[in-house]
Amino acid sequence: MKTTAVIMAGGKGERFWPKSRTSCPKQFLSLTADGETMIQKTVKRLTPLVAQEDIYIVTNAAYLDLIAEQLPELPAENVIAEPCARNTAPCIGLAAAIIEKKYGEAVMFVLPSDHLIHAEDMYIDTLRKAAEAAQAGENLVTLGITPTYPETGYGYIRYVKGSGKGGVYEVERFVEKPDLQRAQEYLADGGYLWNSGMFIWKASTILQNIKAHMPELYEGLQPITAAYGTDGFDKALQDNFCKLPAESVDFGIMEKAENIYTIPGTFGWDDVGSWLALERINETDSEGNMLSGDVINVDSKNCTVCGGARMVAVLGLEDVVIVDTPDAVLVCDKNSTQDIKKVLAELRSHGRLELL
Amino acid sequence: MKTTAVIMAGGKGERFWPKSRTSCPKQFLSLTADGETMIQKTVKRLTPLVAQEDIYIVTNAAYLDLIAEQLPELPAENVIAEPCARNTAPCIGLAAAIIEKKYGEAVMFVLPSDHLIHAEDMYIDTLRKAAEAAQAGENLVTLGITPTYPETGYGYIRYVKGSGKGGVYEVERFVEKPDLQRAQEYLADGGYLWNSGMFIWKASTILQNIKAHMPELYEGLQPITAAYGTDGFDKALQDNFCKLPAESVDFGIMEKAENIYTIPGTFGWDDVGSWLALERINETDSEGNMLSGDVINVDSKNCTVCGGARMVAVLGLEDVVIVDTPDAVLVCDKNSTQDIKKVLAELRSHGRLELL
Repeated sequence: MKTTAVIMAGGKGERFWPKSRTSCPKQFLSLTADGETMIQKTVKRLTPLVAQEDIYIVTNAAYLDLIAEQLPELPAENVIAEPCARNTAPCIGLAAAIIEKKYGEAVMFVLPSDHLIHAEDMYIDTLRKAAEAAQAGENLVTLGITPTYPETGYGYIRYVKGSGKGGVYEVERFVEKPDLQRAQEYLADGGYLWNSGMFIWKASTILQNIKAHMPELYEGLQPITAAYGTDGFDKALQDNFCKLPAESVDFGIMEKAENIYTIPGTFGWDDVGSWLALERINETDSEGNMLSGDVINVDSKNCTVCGGARMVAVLGLEDVVIVDTPDAVLVCDKNSTQDIKKVLAELRSHGRLELL
Repeated sequence: MKTTAVIMAGGKGERFWPKSRTSCPKQFLSLTADGETMIQKTVKRLTPLVAQEDIYIVTNAAYLDLIAEQLPELPAENVIAEPCARNTAPCIGLAAAIIEKKYGEAVMFVLPSDHLIHAEDMYIDTLRKAAEAAQAGENLVTLGITPTYPETGYGYIRYVKGSGKGGVYEVERFVEKPDLQRAQEYLADGGYLWNSGMFIWKASTILQNIKAHMPELYEGLQPITAAYGTDGFDKALQDNFCKLPAESVDFGIMEKAENIYTIPGTFGWDDVGSWLALERINETDSEGNMLSGDVINVDSKNCTVCGGARMVAVLGLEDVVIVDTPDAVLVCDKNSTQDIKKVLAELRSHGRLELL
């Protein structure tokens, strides 16, 4: 059976402001020393498993130029430009409908564009196993990550203990982001995995599930799918996409569907969820500092500094994140990196749209 | 008797890097909300007491353009350009020799160019009283500041308790910057004042003292003074000034001379000695932040932010100083502001002279 990949690249990456901007969000940034952007890495690591012509990117229309620039090897027709953001269910539904129309029966790897994988061989092995499980029936397969601490920023997957067959576990239910106490319970229980947001299924399987659980979405997709491959596609997309229900696939499908399976990943997953990730994914000095760019440090510890065109001098600091860009600089306590959205709210309320 | 002022404006202001640069040190910066530079304030506050044509500035030759720009009202011939930095004794000696040659007997107010005075009326009253004391004999008069905490960054003046006549006290001795324990003893003792670096004397008095205590300086000044008022002055300055002994007036004269008096100042003195001064001399918000320029603050306390052309976003910080300039940004813990010299040393050792 054909294997295809759908990379979701419409995110705003607000937690990486000020480097991430509306005009160039996180997936198009390089956050590692090798200079590759997150989406370039995402595409490249699929090489052993999916042919370039079978890799699809669903993104916001505003990012078509960035994608053409960063991924010139992908066929232009494989880039689907959403005229507006409608969360993941419409994005995935549209990609599934297009893939089914083009290939007939095919497996889809549905993947975020801005995560990091450390053990890429193991990742490919896991995706192969997931593809087999997806082909074996009308199954929805997700990659789960075994928690190592009570993270409150992820959704969780409760799997059925003892159900594992060849590393594939039955899923009892999807649960939304917990509070700290609940996250601690999940961690202690041992029956929960983090939801990595990576899904594997046949296009036909997810379309059946959309029909069953999100009939309005299913109907709304029809005129767009019907126009795919014709000159009328762009117009059909423009006319219909923004009317689709804005819903996540987790809430719209996964919390309601049956035949869900999960494969716990051992491939060194990092969602690179905030500036704090940079000290995990890049080299730090003996004092725990992650310094990139033109930086002079005197007596600072455990700081993350992303320099830009100018020199950044840090002096006697501890646990501070500094990100320098041509028109804005962020200086943030490490405990506050999740509050960058408050800065963005301030910018919006002051009409400083040029900085978003 | 004629009253003149000599403003010493050759300092490097390194503690205000990165705003203060070799090309534009602290005295030429505006550090207050009114936009006036430190040297502009220094000249302006003398208006009730000294005529413009009797105000002299001794500075480095590199700053002639800045002075012409910031103080266009001063006669160009009143700006004495040192071809190299030789500390305060040669600077003051040269000014005294020129003033004596020009006016005969005259009182000199010798003043730093980068201090702030909050009660300017009281300051003028104090200078008047000091001028009277200077005229009354061969007296060296200094303005002292009553300590309020054990500062280790200033020199101290030990005055003779009970010697006060009309607010003028005899000085027992000048003492160099103490360590913390000694500074605590001075504070507890009650017999010590901070040395503000402001001196008042007749030109003839300081020249007599230079002759007595720094004869090499006295001799070295002769060819320069002889050429003053002639076309040969610049050449005489170039040929001779850099050979003068590099010494402070405190060490070279004040620690050795007699007839020293001090007047404790009540005029709200601030030497604006580091970035920490900005929260004292400018308005702070209810959380103790001093924010100037284009700054967005979320949940930060007791921070000092000097924005430049770009937006500075500060998030969850406490006790941090941020100074933004076009080619360098400093982020510094408040406890480390005295260590800016270490950053400058790093810059020098890396040959980054363009940032000094």
